[in-house]
Amino acid sequence: MAVTPDATHDPGRRSWIDSANREDTDFPLQNLPLGVFRRKSESRIGVAIGDRIFDLHAAAGAEIVPPRLREPCLAPRLNRLLAAEHAAWPELRGWLSDVLSMDSCPASLRSIAEACVLPAAGVEMLLPMQVGDYTDFYASRHHATNVGALFRPDQPLLPNYAWVPIGYHGRCSSLVISGTGVRRPNGQLRPETGGSPVFGPTRQLDYELELGAVVGGTNALGEPVPIAKAGERVFGLVLLNDWSARDIQAWEYQPLGPFLGKSFATTLSPWVVTLEALAPFRTTATPRGDGNPPPLPYLTDAADVAGGAFDLQLDVFLATERMRRDGIDPVRLTRSNLRHLYWTLAQLVTHHTSNGCNLQPGDLLGTGTVSGPEPESVGCLLERTRRGTAPLPLPSGETRTFLEDGDEIVLRAFAERSGYRRIGFGECRGRVLAAHPL
Amino acid sequence: MAVTPDATHDPGRRSWIDSANREDTDFPLQNLPLGVFRRKSESRIGVAIGDRIFDLHAAAGAEIVPPRLREPCLAPRLNRLLAAEHAAWPELRGWLSDVLSMDSCPASLRSIAEACVLPAAGVEMLLPMQVGDYTDFYASRHHATNVGALFRPDQPLLPNYAWVPIGYHGRCSSLVISGTGVRRPNGQLRPETGGSPVFGPTRQLDYELELGAVVGGTNALGEPVPIAKAGERVFGLVLLNDWSARDIQAWEYQPLGPFLGKSFATTLSPWVVTLEALAPFRTTATPRGDGNPPPLPYLTDAADVAGGAFDLQLDVFLATERMRRDGIDPVRLTRSNLRHLYWTLAQLVTHHTSNGCNLQPGDLLGTGTVSGPEPESVGCLLERTRRGTAPLPLPSGETRTFLEDGDEIVLRAFAERSGYRRIGFGECRGRVLAAHPL
Repeated sequence: MAVTPDATHDPGRRSWIDSANREDTDFPLQNLPLGVFRRKSESRIGVAIGDRIFDLHAAAGAEIVPPRLREPCLAPRLNRLLAAEHAAWPELRGWLSDVLSMDSCPASLRSIAEACVLPAAGVEMLLPMQVGDYTDFYASRHHATNVGALFRPDQPLLPNYAWVPIGYHGRCSSLVISGTGVRRPNGQLRPETGGSPVFGPTRQLDYELELGAVVGGTNALGEPVPIAKAGERVFGLVLLNDWSARDIQAWEYQPLGPFLGKSFATTLSPWVVTLEALAPFRTTATPRGDGNPPPLPYLTDAADVAGGAFDLQLDVFLATERMRRDGIDPVRLTRSNLRHLYWTLAQLVTHHTSNGCNLQPGDLLGTGTVSGPEPESVGCLLERTRRGTAPLPLPSGETRTFLEDGDEIVLRAFAERSGYRRIGFGECRGRVLAAHPL
Repeated sequence: MAVTPDATHDPGRRSWIDSANREDTDFPLQNLPLGVFRRKSESRIGVAIGDRIFDLHAAAGAEIVPPRLREPCLAPRLNRLLAAEHAAWPELRGWLSDVLSMDSCPASLRSIAEACVLPAAGVEMLLPMQVGDYTDFYASRHHATNVGALFRPDQPLLPNYAWVPIGYHGRCSSLVISGTGVRRPNGQLRPETGGSPVFGPTRQLDYELELGAVVGGTNALGEPVPIAKAGERVFGLVLLNDWSARDIQAWEYQPLGPFLGKSFATTLSPWVVTLEALAPFRTTATPRGDGNPPPLPYLTDAADVAGGAFDLQLDVFLATERMRRDGIDPVRLTRSNLRHLYWTLAQLVTHHTSNGCNLQPGDLLGTGTVSGPEPESVGCLLERTRRGTAPLPLPSGETRTFLEDGDEIVLRAFAERSGYRRIGFGECRGRVLAAHPL
């Protein structure tokens, strides 16, 4: 469903919440991302608007939310909303856009709505949904090629890459919300010269810049989702840092793939930016040719080719302990763009369900590291420092090959286009903590 | 916790449920496995006893269950019982053993307990727990060697195998209960000669004989479970058929491991046999030496070496459509034993959490295919027919390289030892259905 921009995207629409009208906010009236926060020791659904949260739970309790949306909005996570019929999503967006706008909100409604607004600062955010299954893809050809070149210089890209949206199952229990500390994992580290492995803290802790697609709707086990319907199965996107311990991963991953090198923590940003909010930023999918075969028919759809990708700028910042102490601004490590992906979100959904696998509301699909073609657009240190052989100088006089204790990584994303308000994602933040004592 | 056999294992104990006293039952009074079944349109916890189910939900409702166990027994799945403090498990077992025994059950209790018993035949069984994460290991060295030899004759076993309990994350949404039909998956099949892959029904559908360990208790994210405490984190075992599409798997699995070749269905047996019931069948772990290094210290525990393995016989039966039509008994494809595993359950738990990964109540740990050293002890067709090159003759005059539509696979398991009642697992059954039309 390539949503067409509508009145909810009109940049002329202003909110009665002042901070939503500022040029630099991530959360203007045109965004309306959903998240879950703690209030009165409850887990509640809310909407980010400027520097405020609109408490949807309170609004549903006050019975101003459209009737069929009330029950899902009273739930402690987004899962019931994600399970609702597809038409409920634009209905909710349209209602929110009206009720939070300066001009479209009747006075009677506005006073009730005002009572549902609280400052975002200091509020504890929670995981927006209960994730039944988390799948991580490998959808950037640039990333796959760069990483492959480090391990197989003669054959950077394996023969299946051009054909198969490569993915693997990830760990749900260690998904954490932005701001959670990330303990450096211990693990078996590959022996240098064929001797015994050593068990201890990873020496190659890395970040991975990814987007996470939040699944809505259901397909029964055994029922694939055709490509023309697959776009409807993605509700929205979050930032995702797929923390990786490269030495643990390198030693363990043959032949069944990454396991403990990834499962110690995966950080999500709290606000789910809907695909409806991103409609103006749709763009054409990565063209094939130049050695890349056209996708097989089950992965081919004209509308998806025309608008299945998103022009979304992605940034990664690092602040070390010394940088924070010396008052040095975080340094940007990566500037990439989601449009660089080789596969669209719809292709990922269709491939995932092509064997009959059932995707459920709240499932999470990671894109894999979103690296682009330029040197500064690579999405992890493994690529950036060429497996630690090219240390990165920092403005503090330090260098980094991989992450040190105390390092903090922040992912950001935003979409910009002339004639539209800028749509931001907030941040996905995590600081490295010392390893558990052996 | 290597449980010592106690009064609940006494073979002289007889039940007032006659069928539990028969020599050939899988479910004598000494077993007492837990499962979940549908009754009065509710999901309820029950205990298999002979050819009956003891309805624990009804017993808890009648307030005969010990007070602190009542609430977990009223839950719709085992998760709350799995989250209870560890001492609750033997307490429940001891209470069940008394209340269902001929001699230890007071008359006043017995009449109430009798009202909680129903015939097992025809009752719909459900998944015993909500699985938050499903991990599949690769713990049989024989299986890893046999499969490796098919793909890498010069290096059947990779260098990491002897050191690392290899595992990967599996798919939770497609876990199904015994008896559920298994639709043959479609997928990308590896091109024969470097051309384009073909999308269509798998031609290499296989079973995998595994056991699934059901996790109890919790460790916080970042807190590893030491080997001496790891045994306590396994509540019990079920049979697990890790259905596999070998051609899909072979084409997709590099470099991130199995994905759609597995995620179309994984079948579980309904009754969780507790480690307490299996205490008399503990045996020494697979000895090291002969080229196998001793486990690293974090995986080493004297009690685990002495009694961390289980002497549990495992069988796989096949019945084809023609065999059923012609009244031919199912043919045994595999006879293996759980004691063949290279790693113990405690080692799997400790390794899994060694990076700080949190295991939660209801998580499922597959052992991987349990192949033994003998030709008939290999646990899948890939090994048995040497990747389809050595067709298997059947008593119906048919042959099989991989599974055909209509084939039904049944896994069984039982433990036997002189001086103890035989402990069985019931069955894990699944029939292959035709692929979804393209």
